[in-house]
Amino acid sequence: MKNIYVGLIGFGTIGTGVARLLQQNGHLIEKRLGARIVLKKIADIDTTTPRPVTVEKGILIRDANKILEDPEISVVIELIGGYEPARSFVLKAMRNKKHVITANKALLATYGNEIFRVAEEEGVDIGFEASVGGTIPIIKTIKESLVGNRIRSVFGIMNGTTNYILSKMTDEGKSFKTVLKEAQALGFAEADPTFDIEGIDTAHKLTILLSLSYGKKVNLEDIYREGITEISQMDIEYAKELGYRIKLLAIAIQREDRIEARIHPTMIPFGHLLASVNGNFNAFHVIGDASDSVFLYGQGSGMMPTASAVISDLVDISRDMLKKISRRVPPRSIQERAIENIQLMPMEDISTGYYFRFSAVDRPGVLSKVSGILGQHNISIAAVIQKGRTADSAGAVPVVMTTHRSMERDVQAALREIDRLDVVRRKTVRIRVEDESLQ
Amino acid sequence: MKNIYVGLIGFGTIGTGVARLLQQNGHLIEKRLGARIVLKKIADIDTTTPRPVTVEKGILIRDANKILEDPEISVVIELIGGYEPARSFVLKAMRNKKHVITANKALLATYGNEIFRVAEEEGVDIGFEASVGGTIPIIKTIKESLVGNRIRSVFGIMNGTTNYILSKMTDEGKSFKTVLKEAQALGFAEADPTFDIEGIDTAHKLTILLSLSYGKKVNLEDIYREGITEISQMDIEYAKELGYRIKLLAIAIQREDRIEARIHPTMIPFGHLLASVNGNFNAFHVIGDASDSVFLYGQGSGMMPTASAVISDLVDISRDMLKKISRRVPPRSIQERAIENIQLMPMEDISTGYYFRFSAVDRPGVLSKVSGILGQHNISIAAVIQKGRTADSAGAVPVVMTTHRSMERDVQAALREIDRLDVVRRKTVRIRVEDESLQ
Repeated sequence: MKNIYVGLIGFGTIGTGVARLLQQNGHLIEKRLGARIVLKKIADIDTTTPRPVTVEKGILIRDANKILEDPEISVVIELIGGYEPARSFVLKAMRNKKHVITANKALLATYGNEIFRVAEEEGVDIGFEASVGGTIPIIKTIKESLVGNRIRSVFGIMNGTTNYILSKMTDEGKSFKTVLKEAQALGFAEADPTFDIEGIDTAHKLTILLSLSYGKKVNLEDIYREGITEISQMDIEYAKELGYRIKLLAIAIQREDRIEARIHPTMIPFGHLLASVNGNFNAFHVIGDASDSVFLYGQGSGMMPTASAVISDLVDISRDMLKKISRRVPPRSIQERAIENIQLMPMEDISTGYYFRFSAVDRPGVLSKVSGILGQHNISIAAVIQKGRTADSAGAVPVVMTTHRSMERDVQAALREIDRLDVVRRKTVRIRVEDESLQ
Repeated sequence: MKNIYVGLIGFGTIGTGVARLLQQNGHLIEKRLGARIVLKKIADIDTTTPRPVTVEKGILIRDANKILEDPEISVVIELIGGYEPARSFVLKAMRNKKHVITANKALLATYGNEIFRVAEEEGVDIGFEASVGGTIPIIKTIKESLVGNRIRSVFGIMNGTTNYILSKMTDEGKSFKTVLKEAQALGFAEADPTFDIEGIDTAHKLTILLSLSYGKKVNLEDIYREGITEISQMDIEYAKELGYRIKLLAIAIQREDRIEARIHPTMIPFGHLLASVNGNFNAFHVIGDASDSVFLYGQGSGMMPTASAVISDLVDISRDMLKKISRRVPPRSIQERAIENIQLMPMEDISTGYYFRFSAVDRPGVLSKVSGILGQHNISIAAVIQKGRTADSAGAVPVVMTTHRSMERDVQAALREIDRLDVVRRKTVRIRVEDESLQ
């Protein structure tokens, strides 16, 4: 039986999972692949901390170059994360004609163009199923299963940490700060949670999915992004009352010849499958012009689920190697020469539903003034909630409204005007509502 | 640019969808594949009925042999359904060194061993993504994305017609017969609905998934099967009260060295994603030992969604052809020589939760008698509902119980004994409850 030699760089959580899975299910993988995958070397700067997997003596080394320069190793798995030295390792592996597997979304979102170009020049493959959605086969589904479709839209819950926080806030009525602290104590959130809670991690992932779905190169900075730090318990309660749950959604929609891409807290109807995605889980709702809705759900992170995705790339590449081929599927879905640059639709041009919470003094005529301004800006109101509530320290009570589909530009102009009214005491809270586009 | 010539046999709904999708998205598929797919001939015994797609003159022919014997055609898509002549066409295509794509689950479930053997002998590929779950990439997910996993279980809603009927019964309070008639009028159910409502179609699909998940050959007849014809409005209401929805589930579970496979109406907890799958949709909940839960959802049938799955197979095979290879992924997941026969676990040996509805006379001591018999058979009661209700024509009132995990053998013995009691007036209704195994 043929052996396929693999080198692993990065022996942290996911790396440990990969080593463990190859041990645990090696025999089964052999029966499926028809060859043996041999994890020849593992490089990590920490060679002493015990891991929950035992590898043979001599396999764990400090120097990644011993993997990158080993002529017997044909596949390198990069699992150290971050930009450097990950980027240099990946490029060197490819220059040495090794196929690469990575879970590094930050690297691909930022240096993707360079990495994919070098992979093409060298005729090697690059697998990155584990970079988006953990165990969920979202990359393969878009690239292979939906290959006959124009992708109309992708809606995703792509970050487990924020979804965990929002779920806890919704189910247990706790504040953002309290839940964040709990999540940090449990290891579900980093000590510095910025990447997660500000939607940066989600933006990395959306950048990758945009290029697969539309065959376009996207600049990370062009994606509109809003995190979850401003979500309050009050808005979660109003959302429930209106039949919605608040999720941090990544959204990509094809609008005629333009694409809109945005990340922000979003109210989605209670009955929608995405609203049932709680805790650490991730999910993707993809609509193709032929397939209609396809919904995928699973663990977006974690040792073994992510290792499962890495192994799927590894077996894919091994199958090609056994047939002595490479570059069977274009890494970015479209043949490289056909990939185009695009400008995303400016945020001002998008249209969606909106939820507003005004902080206004409780005085006759206020509602008519506010709704009058909305009307002047072509914003039509769907629902209003105004209840006798105690005024807050600024002498204001909450007035909640949802709108029918409106233009972001109009909403921005209307809110600027409304927030200048002397009867309005605080900046109006604005959360987008997705209803129709999810159908 | 290279052309890949394809022949299509069967120009019904799905065949029309395939022709239309190749026209509609041909240019996009070209950019993704790097070659042109040319639908050279379409064979159907009906060449005159207008279809909602226009094909060039001379493409639509009556004689399928003109496709099977055309040396330029390298891929044959079989979409006529049924056993013959589909089986002969598929075998002849493969003997003539043509790759085959089929959506024919009945054919694969019944003649799969012969078909897969011939495909191996001839070194051709066989794609069947469209045979299970319509547009949902369940075949590729199990074969490729979860390749590193031992599949612990597969729970699926695999038949749109029965799911439509059960959803309508649940949401609109109508009887099975009424909804079936409506479904037939709308074209959602066949004039003879036996294949769907008795779970035969589901059994075909489960047979296919069992072979992919466990690398085993399964006899269709060995799968325990119960349809939905006995589901009454009363049980749907009790299910709601207990926090469940009733779905026709196909279930495969690995139990140490044995596999249990069964199809029956099942109560599943309201909060589970499978309980949210309504109408015509299909869904699969797969648990792998590394991946944990993966949930896939989409249109299980229909012209364009099913065509989308056919095209994914077609592009996969075309990619292999462009690289001059075949048999890259074993059609049944495991290398053919490693596939084993299995005996499924006898139904008597399985254990799960149960719902019982007894029809008993409203007399002191009845409840204790019934629960006493259950106790003697090691069946422990989880919940009881007994309300003051008007006795039915047999003088009986309903007594509802759910149980903790119990052995099917014990349940059968207990119910035999209970149904012989003179205080029990009708055969006890028994519906299985899945709770723990879905976690």
